[in-house]
Amino acid sequence: MAGIFITFEGDDGVGKSTHVGVLADSLRSMGFDVLCLREPGNTRIGEALRALLLDAANTEMADECELLIYEAARAQMVREVLLPALDAGKVVICDRFTDSTCAYQAAGRGLDAGFVDAVNAFATDGLRPDLTVLMELPDGAERARRIQERGEADRLELAGEGFHERVSRAFRSLPDAHPERVVRIATADDAEATAQRVLDAVCARIPEIGGRCG
Amino acid sequence: MAGIFITFEGDDGVGKSTHVGVLADSLRSMGFDVLCLREPGNTRIGEALRALLLDAANTEMADECELLIYEAARAQMVREVLLPALDAGKVVICDRFTDSTCAYQAAGRGLDAGFVDAVNAFATDGLRPDLTVLMELPDGAERARRIQERGEADRLELAGEGFHERVSRAFRSLPDAHPERVVRIATADDAEATAQRVLDAVCARIPEIGGRCG
Repeated sequence: MAGIFITFEGDDGVGKSTHVGVLADSLRSMGFDVLCLREPGNTRIGEALRALLLDAANTEMADECELLIYEAARAQMVREVLLPALDAGKVVICDRFTDSTCAYQAAGRGLDAGFVDAVNAFATDGLRPDLTVLMELPDGAERARRIQERGEADRLELAGEGFHERVSRAFRSLPDAHPERVVRIATADDAEATAQRVLDAVCARIPEIGGRCG
Repeated sequence: MAGIFITFEGDDGVGKSTHVGVLADSLRSMGFDVLCLREPGNTRIGEALRALLLDAANTEMADECELLIYEAARAQMVREVLLPALDAGKVVICDRFTDSTCAYQAAGRGLDAGFVDAVNAFATDGLRPDLTVLMELPDGAERARRIQERGEADRLELAGEGFHERVSRAFRSLPDAHPERVVRIATADDAEATAQRVLDAVCARIPEIGGRCG
């Protein structure tokens, strides 16, 4: 079997990393070999780049530099970790991928969307997710509360509210732009209910997984 | 006065950094305000990226990742240092610039030349040198000797001879590809004679400097 590639996208604080882990556990219990990744990072070189990106002291970083560092980390992750895992037949679940770059760097920062598409394609060697789970909170106030609870904001979270509105709007447009691979999951108050919605979507959308669903 | 942007290009070991310094001294003695840069680097973020690129331990670095790290450092340098210096009317002399990326990453590593052009344009915001000094040694054996004398080779120098032949060929093609801005300087045994050839070319090609030449 060739592998299966699932990405999670959505605003900061929406619960992506939690539900990546929950989905991974569910798929493992169904017998799949699952690898979880998060962007940026997952390689020695990528983690060094991640540290540069998330360091709140790097206030002078140009938007163009930021984009290219993200893409450098992605190019390394795709070739060193992601493609080999898919070749080995694994299910790879990635917390953020190219859609986040379109949302944050193109819509959010205002960089040229055509170039962002081109560098996404270059960094990923054209790889597209089999399924993208877009997580959405019922309202933005909730998101703000959750970010605040985490404590000190990182460099990206300091970018201001207009920025986050543009990013959110870009995420919300994803299912219409890519209906063949993006499924919208509205988060519930109950994390278990949200997890069930995610699993139902994965089972419905990916036949190789659906065949083992209850 | 708007600034003047001069780049030095050519194979490793050809003497670029020496002659950047000599030209800078000459121009300063003529009354110009001169800033010397070298790629990659020149900013806090760029130096961190440079360390990643030149670390011989990073043998797993994908060619695509390498390109994007170089371009990230360039994007930061252009916006944080180079454009402000040109705006301030300085002469900026840079040891390597976009032509090196075409030679090393496109011709040398075999990455898509069209994408390399696109990412060069993105990283530099379309900035082109007013003059590019292409330094060429009389023969390749000399180059090998000079690199060996420097001691331990860095990661790029370990990439093998076929690589360096493709890079050299790409550099040699520059004057024909961009005759309006690239001048070929054959190095002489005598460093002073080489420096004079460089200065003569700069005086002949850049009117604002030519007006103060002897």
